[in-house]
Amino acid sequence: MALMTIIVAVDIGGTHLRAAAYKQDQFQPLSHKRIETRASEPDAFSRLVKVIEDIWPQNEKVDAIGVSSPGPVDPHTGIIMMTPNIKEWRDFHITAKLTEYFGIPSYLDNDANLAGLAEWKFGAGRGHHHVLYLTVSTGVGGGVIIDDRLLQGHHGLAAELGHSTVQADGPLCGCGQRGHLESFSSGTGIERFVADQLKAGRESVLHPNKKNSAYMISEAAKQGDALSIEAYSIAGKYLGIGVANFLHTFDPSIVIFGGGVSQSGPLLFDSFEVSLKEHVMHPRYLEGLVIAKAELGDDAGLLGARALAELKLSSK
Amino acid sequence: MALMTIIVAVDIGGTHLRAAAYKQDQFQPLSHKRIETRASEPDAFSRLVKVIEDIWPQNEKVDAIGVSSPGPVDPHTGIIMMTPNIKEWRDFHITAKLTEYFGIPSYLDNDANLAGLAEWKFGAGRGHHHVLYLTVSTGVGGGVIIDDRLLQGHHGLAAELGHSTVQADGPLCGCGQRGHLESFSSGTGIERFVADQLKAGRESVLHPNKKNSAYMISEAAKQGDALSIEAYSIAGKYLGIGVANFLHTFDPSIVIFGGGVSQSGPLLFDSFEVSLKEHVMHPRYLEGLVIAKAELGDDAGLLGARALAELKLSSK
Repeated sequence: MALMTIIVAVDIGGTHLRAAAYKQDQFQPLSHKRIETRASEPDAFSRLVKVIEDIWPQNEKVDAIGVSSPGPVDPHTGIIMMTPNIKEWRDFHITAKLTEYFGIPSYLDNDANLAGLAEWKFGAGRGHHHVLYLTVSTGVGGGVIIDDRLLQGHHGLAAELGHSTVQADGPLCGCGQRGHLESFSSGTGIERFVADQLKAGRESVLHPNKKNSAYMISEAAKQGDALSIEAYSIAGKYLGIGVANFLHTFDPSIVIFGGGVSQSGPLLFDSFEVSLKEHVMHPRYLEGLVIAKAELGDDAGLLGARALAELKLSSK
Repeated sequence: MALMTIIVAVDIGGTHLRAAAYKQDQFQPLSHKRIETRASEPDAFSRLVKVIEDIWPQNEKVDAIGVSSPGPVDPHTGIIMMTPNIKEWRDFHITAKLTEYFGIPSYLDNDANLAGLAEWKFGAGRGHHHVLYLTVSTGVGGGVIIDDRLLQGHHGLAAELGHSTVQADGPLCGCGQRGHLESFSSGTGIERFVADQLKAGRESVLHPNKKNSAYMISEAAKQGDALSIEAYSIAGKYLGIGVANFLHTFDPSIVIFGGGVSQSGPLLFDSFEVSLKEHVMHPRYLEGLVIAKAELGDDAGLLGARALAELKLSSK
């Protein structure tokens, strides 16, 4: 590896497509830019190339490009199978196209895996060797570091931790299965529980005929609405069951929570903590275990794409 | 690592305490011996030392000792926290004692992890880089290889896959929790289901006031006993749910089944296969996936202890 590696990182997010150039050992980017992901011009790849060219460092040699995209993606081949944000990219060989255009190696993985990698390398997980990262947002996603290496799996489809069955006959998940952790503990799961209860005639300050977002439900809970408090309490209970499973499975030294729903504070985490302690089979799993908030916020995708490219170059 | 490493492997099993000496690149041991685990002489460690001395290769330098023991153990410190077979070993620093006595490095891990490691190195998992090994026996245990490395975890307590909650309000597990995979799919789980149903007055060829073992239930099932068939079918269904979870989590290229209950054939695996296909969230997880039987039988513990010692020496 060259002494001072320079990486261009790309994050294909729901609202913004971002690119940044990073010099090794510097946390702040040399340059960065973002544009809206959706646009009237149809060719998303040309727009991506333009953003990358705009942040390309002058008078410096760039060593590799890293890309973070919502899944499913295949990190081994560099193919985006589909991404909700750019519909035209189906089985889109993004790393081959970037390498062809820019003439340097390109690497890809999904946003949750790379957020986990970023938190381990630059964020809340620094110094830990076994990291469990969970994003609790519209869905529940996972990124796992084992012995300082990112868990990717044979087809690159690890670690879809939100799609673990915790209650075989439970509510419907976005993926079509029942009783997944995501069906209880995601924003979507919280909204579904409230909608079902309102439909059944349950009293609440929330309006039965409106779409109540997870954020609106959290605001109602803070005003004392019993239904809203219960919705978050159930989400926290199942999150505790899921995390207990993951402790038994991976035995990490830190659990890091990212994503909008994880910002709910005691509303979610009071019942989470009770449930986690109740469901861990041996207290030794909790010895020295750190429960932390993600530190990198919106930069997790860029920093994860950067970390992936740096790791791949250094293991060459 | 010396060119021709010699390893002494020890397996602390339920009925037998076994030791063998292995020369690198030779599958068959140079020597091996087994004695009964329980004996009237109280000092189990002296008996272990004696067995090891009996198989110690003459005129050869032994490089390391590997030990397989039922858990919980701490592979990082080499301490057996407790083992059901030798009650006097509580927080027993077995690697320190062996190293002190024999003057060479010693390594320890639990039997399920080491059976998984053995199947990857010498058995059904050869050539795979991502292996999920499950033993389905009195309990359900797991051993996981990720990118050619054994998953051990921060405290060395990974991968207790039998203790994953798959039905939050499910039956009691041996560990005291509810609804774990082990509470449905182990021999104990099968026996409990049958006992509960007989108690409730269900018709069966099995005797309601006797202890019916998982093996007796499988024999009754083969004779067409509806209750016994149902018991195995439920075990297989939940095994499918559990394995679907582990595919989403680890994305392995092979799943290997060991343990007595996994010898039940279609009785268990017909419903397992239906359930696995039903619960996998994306068909890509099943692309090229191999489902295999463990190949090493009773030698898995010895060969796993050997593989662990060889790996540790080569990563020094």
